[in-house]
Amino acid sequence: MSKVLVFGHSNPDTDAITSAISFAHLQQQLGVDAEAVALGTPSEETDYALTHFKTAAPRVIETAANEVSQVMLVDHNEAQQSVSDIDELEVLAVVDHHRIANFETANPLYYRAEPVGCTNTIILKLFKEHGIEIPQNIAGLMLSAIISDSLLFKSPTCTPEDVSAAKELAAIAQVDLEAYGLEMLKAGTNLSTKTEDELLNTDAKNFPMGDKQVRIGQVNTVDVNEVLARQSALEAAMAAQNAEGGYDLFILVVTNILDSDSAIVVVGDHQATVEAAFETTLVNGVAHLPGVVSRKKQVVPQLTEAFK
Amino acid sequence: MSKVLVFGHSNPDTDAITSAISFAHLQQQLGVDAEAVALGTPSEETDYALTHFKTAAPRVIETAANEVSQVMLVDHNEAQQSVSDIDELEVLAVVDHHRIANFETANPLYYRAEPVGCTNTIILKLFKEHGIEIPQNIAGLMLSAIISDSLLFKSPTCTPEDVSAAKELAAIAQVDLEAYGLEMLKAGTNLSTKTEDELLNTDAKNFPMGDKQVRIGQVNTVDVNEVLARQSALEAAMAAQNAEGGYDLFILVVTNILDSDSAIVVVGDHQATVEAAFETTLVNGVAHLPGVVSRKKQVVPQLTEAFK
Repeated sequence: MSKVLVFGHSNPDTDAITSAISFAHLQQQLGVDAEAVALGTPSEETDYALTHFKTAAPRVIETAANEVSQVMLVDHNEAQQSVSDIDELEVLAVVDHHRIANFETANPLYYRAEPVGCTNTIILKLFKEHGIEIPQNIAGLMLSAIISDSLLFKSPTCTPEDVSAAKELAAIAQVDLEAYGLEMLKAGTNLSTKTEDELLNTDAKNFPMGDKQVRIGQVNTVDVNEVLARQSALEAAMAAQNAEGGYDLFILVVTNILDSDSAIVVVGDHQATVEAAFETTLVNGVAHLPGVVSRKKQVVPQLTEAFK
Repeated sequence: MSKVLVFGHSNPDTDAITSAISFAHLQQQLGVDAEAVALGTPSEETDYALTHFKTAAPRVIETAANEVSQVMLVDHNEAQQSVSDIDELEVLAVVDHHRIANFETANPLYYRAEPVGCTNTIILKLFKEHGIEIPQNIAGLMLSAIISDSLLFKSPTCTPEDVSAAKELAAIAQVDLEAYGLEMLKAGTNLSTKTEDELLNTDAKNFPMGDKQVRIGQVNTVDVNEVLARQSALEAAMAAQNAEGGYDLFILVVTNILDSDSAIVVVGDHQATVEAAFETTLVNGVAHLPGVVSRKKQVVPQLTEAFK
C-alpha cells in the first residue's frame, strides 16, 4: 500500500491537528504508511499542547494529489474545509463528529462519525477496538483536543463519553485534567498580539446555507469586551473577506470560556435572518447570546434552518 | 425519545430488509423506540429467509414524515434510494457499505460505513461492541443477507470479515451455512412466474456514464438458458423501457449462482462500447462473461471506463 496522508480541516484547531496525529499513529500500528499533516499552522492553544507533550507540529500542506493518491480525513468531511484538490483524491477513511455535507465518493469507504464532542473521543474507541496501546504524548494531545472542543466539559456538544474519554486519557498522559486544561485554554486566549485577520481566521469555516455562503469564525477569550473594543477594525476586515471570498455573510462568535457565553459580530447581508435564527436583535451589528458556546450545536443548525 | 423508523433502500434486497430488522432490534435493546420497516415487499429469496427464521416481513412504507420526525438508514445513504420525503426527516444514524453520495445532514449523526460485502457484517460488530446478544432468528436473517450479498462468498465484494461473520452467525442460527445458503439462493431464482418487466426490474439501477444513460439489471438463476429462452420478449421489454426512460443502453446481467458466470443481454446503442468494455463479441445481442458475478465490481467500472 502506498503512502497515505491524514489531515484535519483547514484553519486547524487543536482537535484537527491532534486527531491527525493520533489517527495516523493508529494507522501506522495497523500497517498503513500514514503521515499526519495539517492544513495550517497550530494555534497558540495547540502550540501549548504540542510543547507540553513534546511533539512536533505536523508538516503543513495545501494540496495532496501532488504527493499521494489516497487520503484519510479527520475532524471534517466537507470539501470546502479540506485540501483544495480533494476531488482528485480517493478518500479511504473519515473519522469525524460533524454533520455530513458536500461529501461524495466513487467507492465504498470506512466512515466513522458519532455525535460526540470531539474526534479524539472516537479515535480512543478505535484504539481500544484494535487493542493498540496509546503512547503517553499522544494520549496528552488527544486529551487536549477534548478539553479544547468541550471547553473543559462546559460546551453542550460535550457528552458523557467525552468526559470519560478525557479521564482515561489524562491517566495515560499523567496530567491533572482540570489544572492542565485551564492552562491550555488560557494559552489560546491571548488575542492582543493578533491582527484582525488573524483573529477572524483563528477558527473560521464556510457553510453553504440555501444558496448563500456563510463564513463563521470563533475566538475564545476570558474578556469579550477586549475583542468588542476592536469592533470597527474587525468589521472592516470582515467586509474585505466577504468581498474577496464571495461570502454573503460573516459572523464572528466571541466566546467567553469562563462564563460560557458568546457575543456575535455580524457583517454582510441577511442580518434579519440572523436575528430570526437566534431570536435576538442586532444592535450596531452585535448581539449577546447567553449560554451559547458551540458553533456546531448552537449556531450552525439555527442559521441553516433560518436560511431554508 | 419518540419513535424512530429504521429502513433499507427501495427495491429492497435481503440485506436491505434484514439489516433494518437487526439494527432496529439492536436499537431497541439500547432503549430506542425503533421499528423496522421496508420500502418494498420482500423478494422470494428474502421471503425464504423470513419464513425459515419465522419472522414477519416489515411493514411497507413509502413516506416517513407522516409518522415520525427521525429515522435511521441501513444499507443505503443516497437520497434517491430512500423514502421520497427524506429531506423532511432527521437522519439519526446510518449503517452502510456503499459509497457516500447525495447525502447531507444539518446535524452531527452516527454514521458507520465500512468497505465490506454486507451491512449485516457491520451490524454484527455493533452487537458485539455493545455486548448485546443476538436472538437466533435475527442471527439467521443476518446470515441470509451475507449469503445473498456475497453469493455464498463467491462475489469479489466479499471480504474475509464477511466470511467470518457468516460463520459466527450460522453457529448462533444453528444452520448448516452451505446447505441453507444454497437453498435460500435457489429460492430467489424462481423466475418462471415473473413477467419480463418484473425480471428486468428485480434489481435494476441507472448509471450515468459519460453523457449516456445506462440501465443495468441483474437476475440470479441456476439455469441461464431458462432466461435466454425468453430473449426476444425480454428485448422488446428492454427496448420499451429505453424509449420510456430515455436510456441509451439496457444491459441485463443473467448470473448463474452455481457456476459464478454471467450472460449479458444488450439492447440499445453503443454495442461496440459494450464489446470493448468486456473484451468480448456480442452474438445476436448476447455475450457470455465467465467469472463475472458482481455488477458493482465487474460490470459498472468496466463500462464506465469504456464510455469515457
